[in-house]
Amino acid sequence: MLYATISLTAGEHQYPIHVGSDLLSDPALITPHIQGRRALLISNETVGPLFAPSIRRALEDVELDEYFLPDGEAFKTLDRVTDAVEHLIRGEHTRDTTIIALGGGVVGDTAGFTAAVYQRGVPFVQIPTTLLAQVDASVGGKTAVNHALGKNMIGAFYQPQAVLIDTDTLKSLPERERIAGVAEVIKHGVLADSGYFEWIEAHLDEILAQDPAVMSHAIARSCEIKSEVVANDEKEKGRRALLNLGHTFGHAIESALGYGEWLHGEAVGAGLVMAADLSMRMGMLAPADAVRIKRLVTRAGLPVMPPEGVRGQLRELMSRDKKASDAGLRLILVRRIGEAEVVESVPEALIADTIGIGEGLCAA
Amino acid sequence: MLYATISLTAGEHQYPIHVGSDLLSDPALITPHIQGRRALLISNETVGPLFAPSIRRALEDVELDEYFLPDGEAFKTLDRVTDAVEHLIRGEHTRDTTIIALGGGVVGDTAGFTAAVYQRGVPFVQIPTTLLAQVDASVGGKTAVNHALGKNMIGAFYQPQAVLIDTDTLKSLPERERIAGVAEVIKHGVLADSGYFEWIEAHLDEILAQDPAVMSHAIARSCEIKSEVVANDEKEKGRRALLNLGHTFGHAIESALGYGEWLHGEAVGAGLVMAADLSMRMGMLAPADAVRIKRLVTRAGLPVMPPEGVRGQLRELMSRDKKASDAGLRLILVRRIGEAEVVESVPEALIADTIGIGEGLCAA
Repeated sequence: MLYATISLTAGEHQYPIHVGSDLLSDPALITPHIQGRRALLISNETVGPLFAPSIRRALEDVELDEYFLPDGEAFKTLDRVTDAVEHLIRGEHTRDTTIIALGGGVVGDTAGFTAAVYQRGVPFVQIPTTLLAQVDASVGGKTAVNHALGKNMIGAFYQPQAVLIDTDTLKSLPERERIAGVAEVIKHGVLADSGYFEWIEAHLDEILAQDPAVMSHAIARSCEIKSEVVANDEKEKGRRALLNLGHTFGHAIESALGYGEWLHGEAVGAGLVMAADLSMRMGMLAPADAVRIKRLVTRAGLPVMPPEGVRGQLRELMSRDKKASDAGLRLILVRRIGEAEVVESVPEALIADTIGIGEGLCAA
Repeated sequence: MLYATISLTAGEHQYPIHVGSDLLSDPALITPHIQGRRALLISNETVGPLFAPSIRRALEDVELDEYFLPDGEAFKTLDRVTDAVEHLIRGEHTRDTTIIALGGGVVGDTAGFTAAVYQRGVPFVQIPTTLLAQVDASVGGKTAVNHALGKNMIGAFYQPQAVLIDTDTLKSLPERERIAGVAEVIKHGVLADSGYFEWIEAHLDEILAQDPAVMSHAIARSCEIKSEVVANDEKEKGRRALLNLGHTFGHAIESALGYGEWLHGEAVGAGLVMAADLSMRMGMLAPADAVRIKRLVTRAGLPVMPPEGVRGQLRELMSRDKKASDAGLRLILVRRIGEAEVVESVPEALIADTIGIGEGLCAA
């Protein structure tokens, strides 16, 4: 059942995001986006076997090749891209072959980057199967793989032909991953739309229970917000930085713990509360709003502060974050629920307090 | 001495190509294109030591880091990109760092692809030092590295901030490489401008003798022609295919001989004559024009036919060329000197004749 279609514009490129339940086997949604007569489905060994049969049925008239990665962030590497390219060359895939990415962020990023670079770019259709990928990775065209020395260090901005989001795929996720994805949903409310934040407060139980219509609305509204922010800033020079709300803190936590210890969404949950705490210390955000943000993150079942043992390392790791520039640390802070902004010179003492030596929300 | 500046437009992006002699140490030409306060000069161990000192002098106020590849096509690989990215991460280079590519096609392609993918793209300045790179690689934004199974299989379209072409760098080239570059110059005359073809006929001796003013004109006019063809076709869907004149034959020769046996320009020289021969057999091109093309390629000292021993393999290799599409072999043929076109269904018997079983120009 198709609940929503959002039309996205990135530079001169336009593409639809279809959101609903039981969409994967509908030929009408996917077929128009396969340009040639061949496609390569890139997925992983966990997700591929679950949903590839539906896609195969929907693409009866397309010669569908398959390439499955092992499951896990450890395989988001250039080596796997090289291996996928070898599969493409051996299969004599030309520039007319469409790459279909079926999976979460790791598959989307790896397959998307493969599509971006194979013969300097082939068409690409995205089928994200985790909530995090659905609300975050399906908008903005970011693709990347990790380098041994840093996450997402090698990548490209590359837009898909279409994104298909089937809420049924969420049923296959472990509860912890489903909850982690909610952090990005909350983030979108905090940074851009107080009405949406209220709606999330009112519907959090249905979101956690995976109600298809409520999930479709949350996903569609999150994609819309992200696309509004990304519009006219495809290459991440200005307003798009707002989407990093909670992420400078979150990335530092992930990096300090070792990637995989906390899920990305869990680190973003804590990062959102830390950003709210710091905004309050700066005198930007009313304490009542900071408390509302912390309360919603808590209700979702997400962490609200960094782990005790790594606090000493966080400040230095924040400076190493990819979003850093020559000009120094920029943080995204909250003016009020529904409005965030880039702040360039935050007093170090306040950052230290937020990280956990002080007495704010995060140390509570 | 600056002889010419061409302004290029690719999509929404605009950048200058400066052509002349003794340009490298002029701060006014390079400094405006370094956006941050740091840059990484990527070159190779042959070219780097020759010209890096001039660039260092021109960029006194920029913190200039260096990364030199070993010299040779064997190093145009993803492994080297990974290594360059490691150098960037260890040097704490942010997205504001500009990558400067100093060298021939291998350096330009590898450094350009590194710039395209490091943190999803950093600014990029190109300083091509071979004639081939100056007339071909400096326009169009193509970057790529080789895969073990195929040349240029992994790449991106990525435009530089500026291109600096110093004709003095050509003096460092072996004669064979200087001659090879002339093939692309002739190609531009054949495919787009009969007046330019005549000018090349009249000035070939000065081109071969590296007269700076003549070379600057040839480079500038070739860049203009390529940019006119590339304009509005940044991603190679239509008219841009014309630039592959001679290349489907040429790539097949290179592939059959093993890359490096013939220089790319040598294979393109033979490919141009083969394209002229096939055009004549198709009844498209007047025999007198085919003869003029062959005569100019001969005078330049380039090969005009494929090596005897590999002719049997060429037809199959042509189908494997990257430019092939699902629709089958497309060839670029010549209607008259100054006008080329894409032809989709060329009779196999005529192709076989051109390859060397028949009696045309190439078997002469």
